[in-house]
Amino acid sequence: MASFVNVEPNSDFPLQNLPYGVFSTCSNPTRRIGVAIGELILDLSVVAGLFDGPVLRPHQDVFRQTTLNKLMALGRPAWTEARQRLQALLSDAPGPLRDDADLRAKALVPQSEVTMHLPADIGDYTDFYSSIHHATNVGIMFRGKENALMPNWRHLPVGYHGRASSVVVSGTPIRRPAGQTRPDESQPPVFGPCKLLDFELEMAFFTGPGNDLGQPITMQQANDHIFGMVLMNDWSARDIQKWEYVPLGPFLGKNFGTTISPWVVTMDALKPFRVDNYAQEPPVLPYLQQQDKNNLDIALEVAIKPKEGGDAVRVCSSNFRYMYWTLQQQLVHHTVNGCNTRPGDLLASGTISGPTDDSLGSMLELSWRGSREVAVGAGRTRKFLQDGDEVIISGYCQGPGYRVGFGTCAGKIIPALPL
Amino acid sequence: MASFVNVEPNSDFPLQNLPYGVFSTCSNPTRRIGVAIGELILDLSVVAGLFDGPVLRPHQDVFRQTTLNKLMALGRPAWTEARQRLQALLSDAPGPLRDDADLRAKALVPQSEVTMHLPADIGDYTDFYSSIHHATNVGIMFRGKENALMPNWRHLPVGYHGRASSVVVSGTPIRRPAGQTRPDESQPPVFGPCKLLDFELEMAFFTGPGNDLGQPITMQQANDHIFGMVLMNDWSARDIQKWEYVPLGPFLGKNFGTTISPWVVTMDALKPFRVDNYAQEPPVLPYLQQQDKNNLDIALEVAIKPKEGGDAVRVCSSNFRYMYWTLQQQLVHHTVNGCNTRPGDLLASGTISGPTDDSLGSMLELSWRGSREVAVGAGRTRKFLQDGDEVIISGYCQGPGYRVGFGTCAGKIIPALPL
Ligand SMILES: [Ca+2]
Ligand SMILES: [Ca+2]
Ligand SMILES: [Mg+2]
Ligand SMILES: [Mg+2]
Ligand code: NI
Repeated sequence: MASFVNVEPNSDFPLQNLPYGVFSTCSNPTRRIGVAIGELILDLSVVAGLFDGPVLRPHQDVFRQTTLNKLMALGRPAWTEARQRLQALLSDAPGPLRDDADLRAKALVPQSEVTMHLPADIGDYTDFYSSIHHATNVGIMFRGKENALMPNWRHLPVGYHGRASSVVVSGTPIRRPAGQTRPDESQPPVFGPCKLLDFELEMAFFTGPGNDLGQPITMQQANDHIFGMVLMNDWSARDIQKWEYVPLGPFLGKNFGTTISPWVVTMDALKPFRVDNYAQEPPVLPYLQQQDKNNLDIALEVAIKPKEGGDAVRVCSSNFRYMYWTLQQQLVHHTVNGCNTRPGDLLASGTISGPTDDSLGSMLELSWRGSREVAVGAGRTRKFLQDGDEVIISGYCQGPGYRVGFGTCAGKIIPALPL
Repeated sequence: MASFVNVEPNSDFPLQNLPYGVFSTCSNPTRRIGVAIGELILDLSVVAGLFDGPVLRPHQDVFRQTTLNKLMALGRPAWTEARQRLQALLSDAPGPLRDDADLRAKALVPQSEVTMHLPADIGDYTDFYSSIHHATNVGIMFRGKENALMPNWRHLPVGYHGRASSVVVSGTPIRRPAGQTRPDESQPPVFGPCKLLDFELEMAFFTGPGNDLGQPITMQQANDHIFGMVLMNDWSARDIQKWEYVPLGPFLGKNFGTTISPWVVTMDALKPFRVDNYAQEPPVLPYLQQQDKNNLDIALEVAIKPKEGGDAVRVCSSNFRYMYWTLQQQLVHHTVNGCNTRPGDLLASGTISGPTDDSLGSMLELSWRGSREVAVGAGRTRKFLQDGDEVIISGYCQGPGYRVGFGTCAGKIIPALPL
């Protein structure tokens, strides 16, 4: 399966991938939907008329939107037809795009020349806590080894509502937040810039068609409500979080910025990389039981490009397959009480830590609460993030001779505002 | 100050109020913005052209929207000019509305003939926990008298992100949620309909112009970012909440429905009812200090109309002035880390309980965790809500000879889905 567009073997964006994103260019600042192929983008606003299959023909307007929400709302038959049409249009077989130089000139844009935007209007953003290694590590640090996992953790995918307004696209600078902390518990709290700024290696999925309030999504229906996935960095201010979070959970320690990668990789593209689910013991309640392989083999990496300069240095190699709870279980649990979703909602995994010291998905874990140094190259070390540091998350699925990749999810810390 | 429209002395909607809402009619299902006056609604889509002052003339389109978001975005000078114009148009002095029978016939609609809708697209919804009586009561029940208030409670307005998708307008039925609970802690959790369904008496405010990510709203700026207030019922499933909420806070125990009243009462209308702030001890950090009287004297009441029939019976009389933290402090704290807001965000107070047994804002407190019965008329009692019960919240500010009222925030429980 090859494209008439040149695709390098280690490209994230071969014909097997075809992720959706929203972009604009200097010459045309209107946001429009594109599909990544090699180092190019196919501008779907230009080729919308070519989606002439039975499902999409009456809905070609979804390709002329400024976000993916309407495409997400159409549902799986539309997504499958769109993917088939895109693979045909971009393949090296004869076709209306390959064989039309004028159309190609209008419809194909180099990725290097565009600005990427948030792929969807995010109505609600939820963050789960679904890596057993992460939950155990944090539990050991804050409650000791005996009570590391809370009693509910193996029975339901613990999650909380996050802030939708501050979800930003890769490349957006993140300002170090200020806030209340209580570094000395014998003294009153103090106000100032966060001193324990962290990343969290996460992935997230976008929902498809919504469910009505009061109508849960069942396990049988779940796949029809999951559109695709992105990389995510859930920036976290550990000192603010620690002081504020009892009893109602994370708030200002998290909501100052959450970065996602711009390209939404569809579940169809990820299908070949499904692997066995994480063994769940004790067995989960019937509404959470799943027959399918819903786990995914996605290699994940975090690199830090330190403020002092030099190359980005890998600080973590993890894998999405370490997730205890699957996307499907998260969505089914989220709606089992009748909570409604809307197309374009974002549901995140929680920090994806693996079982080894080099697969820990946050500085909190890598530095073990600041008790050890993390190397970032040229003899430099970090316990938490410093102003000017850039965090770059990447991830891909390795197929035979090709990769289905996610690009990068990057963000650089800028100093706190002067107080 | 009188209107040419008849306004009864105990009406919630005299010329001093003029709350905004969104409505439609059978003959015209398009949603449009209205202002309540007596038992009528002034349809602003019909009179948009009459807003011809210097601020609003170039923005008359805000009155032809299907939500209030664009009006909220314009900011205080626009809100003030709109209020002045509305008071002039609806007063008993000569004017282009009073003196034009055709225009009156088109622009004034009986409230009894309309369907009310959500006043705004809510980008993010946050729930605070700002009544010291409520926080203390819940603390005593779950942690005992010694540790009732968490150490952070008097230092910052504790809050968490709620679910925006499931905020619904008064009158929407609320389905009893199903979910995981663990009634017997020596046994595994079970799945089934919520058995401890509750209301929470709250109020909430809508934000005006947003702030950019990374740019806090200061105490000096706060009033320019607060548009107006509504009544709110934060429906709560206590058994689901109890099992799920550690360590990341409320999730499915809250996100199955949150009801707000349809009429947004502006801060200008509430100004005459400002009262002394709740005394805060210890003093708060400088960024939370306020000079103005930001507290409000708003009488609040909760009534239950039991499933068996009969009149609604009052179960709680409270007052917004019992709030420890003010709206301004909530907004300033929420954004002090750079978290951005957008026009139409909803920030709720938390349960507004007073110091006495008849001013407790939830069944959890009224029945003291199910240990005592709450009378709902004709010898009937409740500990928590039953299917078919309707909860009706109302509230008003009492002025000399007039009321600035909020109408009602009502919702009826419908049975859980069959499992
Ligand atoms: Ca997280
Ligand atoms: Ca609440
Ligand atoms: Mg975040
Ligand atoms: Mg609620
Ligand atoms: Ni259709």
